[in-house]
Amino acid sequence: MALFIGVDVGGTKVMASAVDARGRVLRTAHRSTPGRLVDPVVVEDALTEAVQEVAGRRAIDGVGLAAAGFVDGAGERVMFAPHLPWRGEQVRARLMERWGTTVVLDNDANCAARAEVAFGAARGATDAIVVTLGTGIGGAVVLNGRVHRGSNGMAGEFGHMQVVPDGQACECGGTGCWEQYCSGNALARHARAQLGRVPTLLDDLCDGDPARLVGPMVTQGADQGDRVALEAFASVGDWLGVGVANLVAAFDPDVVVIAGGVSAAGEHLLAPARAALARSLVGTGHRVVPPLLRATLGPEAGVVGAADKARSAVRSGGRRARALRRTTRVGGRAARRLGADD
Amino acid sequence: MALFIGVDVGGTKVMASAVDARGRVLRTAHRSTPGRLVDPVVVEDALTEAVQEVAGRRAIDGVGLAAAGFVDGAGERVMFAPHLPWRGEQVRARLMERWGTTVVLDNDANCAARAEVAFGAARGATDAIVVTLGTGIGGAVVLNGRVHRGSNGMAGEFGHMQVVPDGQACECGGTGCWEQYCSGNALARHARAQLGRVPTLLDDLCDGDPARLVGPMVTQGADQGDRVALEAFASVGDWLGVGVANLVAAFDPDVVVIAGGVSAAGEHLLAPARAALARSLVGTGHRVVPPLLRATLGPEAGVVGAADKARSAVRSGGRRARALRRTTRVGGRAARRLGADD
Repeated sequence: MALFIGVDVGGTKVMASAVDARGRVLRTAHRSTPGRLVDPVVVEDALTEAVQEVAGRRAIDGVGLAAAGFVDGAGERVMFAPHLPWRGEQVRARLMERWGTTVVLDNDANCAARAEVAFGAARGATDAIVVTLGTGIGGAVVLNGRVHRGSNGMAGEFGHMQVVPDGQACECGGTGCWEQYCSGNALARHARAQLGRVPTLLDDLCDGDPARLVGPMVTQGADQGDRVALEAFASVGDWLGVGVANLVAAFDPDVVVIAGGVSAAGEHLLAPARAALARSLVGTGHRVVPPLLRATLGPEAGVVGAADKARSAVRSGGRRARALRRTTRVGGRAARRLGADD
Repeated sequence: MALFIGVDVGGTKVMASAVDARGRVLRTAHRSTPGRLVDPVVVEDALTEAVQEVAGRRAIDGVGLAAAGFVDGAGERVMFAPHLPWRGEQVRARLMERWGTTVVLDNDANCAARAEVAFGAARGATDAIVVTLGTGIGGAVVLNGRVHRGSNGMAGEFGHMQVVPDGQACECGGTGCWEQYCSGNALARHARAQLGRVPTLLDDLCDGDPARLVGPMVTQGADQGDRVALEAFASVGDWLGVGVANLVAAFDPDVVVIAGGVSAAGEHLLAPARAALARSLVGTGHRVVPPLLRATLGPEAGVVGAADKARSAVRSGGRRARALRRTTRVGGRAARRLGADD
């Protein structure tokens, strides 16, 4: 059986998994991410260790990297990543040379979206929007069944669409960005503002220290019916629906998938979001409002999508190489190079 | 020479033009649009007259319709059009039967975008956003060189993306829609609020009656250096840049084209828009900011794009029909029907 490995290179953790052709994770290795102040080689060492642990003595057919950062339009370089040392490095070529196998590269949100369309909540969709709610908002646009990467590889940066003029200051330097109102951070900030004002379970969960309050605690509070937590979800969910309505007005997809850590809250988040979407979307008398679904692949979506991308590249590379041999009878080296470059 | 005709069915005017393969308009006929309270057949009569006038005694190879309204995902029906009587009618099939030639149907903004990509400002672009500024905002999304119509045929409804929470009430029933701040109507409203407060040429242009002030007067004022007019363009241009930055964050296109009547103001509009785009767009340190260009085909873009769509349908229909004859030897009627249905 062919061995394809997906590697999710996050801000704090590296996760490498062998993934089969049906998107099932067979085995996984973890490493810590060395941080952004080290030499890029140190990060690449950590990736190499994780990949080797997963592969054992088996030959690797291809590796897909899902990186938490900006990947260029060609899928060759990581241009910038807030928690990683890569700054324009030719990551794909470097690791391909080091590992001696096909390597493909994309950002983590695109890989996760690819997985949800191939194997998850958006399975079978032609056009989909995937909104990933974590600390901030990541996202991806799927058109004709494929992730649309854009001219700079930066399509799907939904988090920095401005939804409030002169609104909340954002880390990006802008103001009023969507992720300031709709994200794990926004959820915690909303709840934090109520601590000490009204009785809430969240006081206990954060040991009375608002600075320690994070998104998963708010989810836990909501699950127990805490009012402050539910109000925080009502606000974040409402903003989710408003922003999704904007995206649906622009793209008109078949389906919208909500992924990322915050989506674990399920209906606490999705019910107010669906209400806001139905209220905010233009032309609802003349269209089908797309379903707003929770992602099904969870934290493994990145590795599943990355491995799937590697598998496709090797397959289409093989097809192209065979076509090249048939039509030009060049064979051998050129065909192999073509396969590896796909 | 093959005869392809594009028909732009607007709220007040019908324009039909013969268009050659290079997108050049050869001759044109005009009719008034009969309005939304008549029988649909009356509108179809007006279209038929205009098409016959353009064709004369020549045989027609195909007609493309660009309709000012919602066209369904399949390109068969006009679901709704504020100034036309069609409400879900099978416009394409009806006119195809009446005219005995291939007919294709899309909305006007999509047709105009097709024309700008094929022959105009976005020529050669892979991915483009076209924002059409008239009374409101229309728009289109071009991906891989093709207009992306969306699941309901409603992609590109940029005008009703919310940019101000609880903002200006919109005709769509929503509030804070982009077109309330960025359109011909917004331009006139902005200028109107200053009439009587400060000296302005616009007083003369509208004969002292604010209710008579319309967008083109503001353009005329700006051309003459009028401060009120220039301030109105500064505001509308700024909102244009902010909204375009949102679209670029989501799609990451190669180019953004500004079309429609308001775009005739050129740099009065585009200079503040470019400044706002550069200021508002995320990740400008790691990307190319797409050029913001004025459309070049003007009011003919709709007919040019519609005719081009008809030409493509006939060509690909012909190719498919030939393929069908080769592979199944069915020939004749089925192949002709296939061509006509494309």
